[in-house]
Amino acid sequence: MSRGRFITFEGGEGAGKSTQLKRLVARLEAEGRQVVATREPGGSPGAESIRELVLNGAADRWSPVTETLLMYAARRDHIERVIRPAIDRGAWVVCDRFADSTRAYQGAAGGTDPALIAALERFILEDVRPDLTLIFDFPPETGLARATARPGAEMRFESKVMAFHERLREGFLAIAQAEPERCAVIDADDTIEAVEAQVWSTVQARLAVHG
Amino acid sequence: MSRGRFITFEGGEGAGKSTQLKRLVARLEAEGRQVVATREPGGSPGAESIRELVLNGAADRWSPVTETLLMYAARRDHIERVIRPAIDRGAWVVCDRFADSTRAYQGAAGGTDPALIAALERFILEDVRPDLTLIFDFPPETGLARATARPGAEMRFESKVMAFHERLREGFLAIAQAEPERCAVIDADDTIEAVEAQVWSTVQARLAVHG
Ligand SMILES: Nc1ncnc2c1ncn2[C@@H]1O[C@H](COP(=O)(O)OP(=O)(O)OP(=O)(O)O)[C@@H](O)[C@H]1O
Ligand SMILES: Nc1ncnc2c1ncn2[C@@H]1O[C@H](COP(=O)(O)OP(=O)(O)OP(=O)(O)O)[C@@H](O)[C@H]1O
Ligand SMILES: [Mg+2]
Ligand SMILES: [Mg+2]
Repeated sequence: MSRGRFITFEGGEGAGKSTQLKRLVARLEAEGRQVVATREPGGSPGAESIRELVLNGAADRWSPVTETLLMYAARRDHIERVIRPAIDRGAWVVCDRFADSTRAYQGAAGGTDPALIAALERFILEDVRPDLTLIFDFPPETGLARATARPGAEMRFESKVMAFHERLREGFLAIAQAEPERCAVIDADDTIEAVEAQVWSTVQARLAVHG
Repeated sequence: MSRGRFITFEGGEGAGKSTQLKRLVARLEAEGRQVVATREPGGSPGAESIRELVLNGAADRWSPVTETLLMYAARRDHIERVIRPAIDRGAWVVCDRFADSTRAYQGAAGGTDPALIAALERFILEDVRPDLTLIFDFPPETGLARATARPGAEMRFESKVMAFHERLREGFLAIAQAEPERCAVIDADDTIEAVEAQVWSTVQARLAVHG
């Protein structure tokens, strides 16, 4: 049996990642592929309990460095129990946020030392690296408006200032520039259908899907 | 105002760390020193909530690597919010377990890559290193008997096999050998009073206490 694929969706709040992830999963399943849709932080029972700890409470409950470690603890559990086994059995894993969110949120926007994040990627991700990362790019103002309109939204990150979101956007775009073979920037400032078409053509082109 | 001191107590379960820590704190306070007694995992509200996550549940809830990251997340919070501020204001911080427990439990006994642990020490501890570490050494059989006799004991680590405890003991002794300037081995297989006398004379000799 052949190894599966690992696709991650990255970008700021309200960019349409979760909306588009569902649509990509439906397309891949319609082709008869075995698909595992998952998310971070979370995606395994242990990681979901760490997610609770990270996302609840006051905005300053955790420093960026502590948050980085909690995110990587959750990520390691998720990799060991869900992602790696699924890829090994030939599934396509589609994950809503992954390691680039730590680089952008805790790193570019939060100020965590990039050398710490690089060390964690090396020791914790090991060979579990995305085959394709879709970076949803979007003006932060519009993204925040979309995200805060949702009922029951977790408000911790949303409440941070606009400057944070600008650094975040620049952080994601810097990743796309630094790793163009792995990453593709999706212009998320368009209709849901137009973004869906961009996602599908990118997946087809990058991962040689003949759907 | 002069910088405080940082003393850590390390060793396997039931070695007498908590018993002796109380006695050392009483002696230091009797000398008029400002003392902060604390423990790991835990020691700050955030770190205590991570402690709950790590110590509860099934023995295989977390892999050694995930556990290492959770311990370091808790440790970072504890350092930022309790240990570093206390040392900076001149207090003597006496901590029941610290970074060497990660080296011994998740590293020597659990198999976590020592290079990951070394990287975490560098990025997470930074300059917060113990001035003195007392390593309580004790035959594991007797230590386990002491620890399991206590009411309400957290049983997760205790339930692991004796081979684990042998590797743990060797792990702690290897730390003492590798860093003799920082560490002192306490023979914990003696009466409470005899161990207390060893602890006090070691603290006096190593930290130039004239009590
Ligand atoms: N292209 C689009 N145009 C207009 N609205 C959209 C578009 N895509 C998604 N939305 C809406 O915007 C809101 C946010 O979308 P979605 O939850 O998919 O974003 P997200 O990137 O997953 O956000 P988060 O990072 O907060 O999880 C939803 O209400 C969704 O229906
Ligand atoms: N020198 C000693 N001789 C006999 N019993 C002792 C001695 N020191 C401690 N004890 C008893 O052994 C038990 C374990 O001691 P203590 O809680 O201090 O160990 P510990 O090293 O803190 O263990 P843990 O790592 O599980 O917290 C307690 O019931 C304590 O009263
Ligand atoms: Mg989403
Ligand atoms: Mg104790």
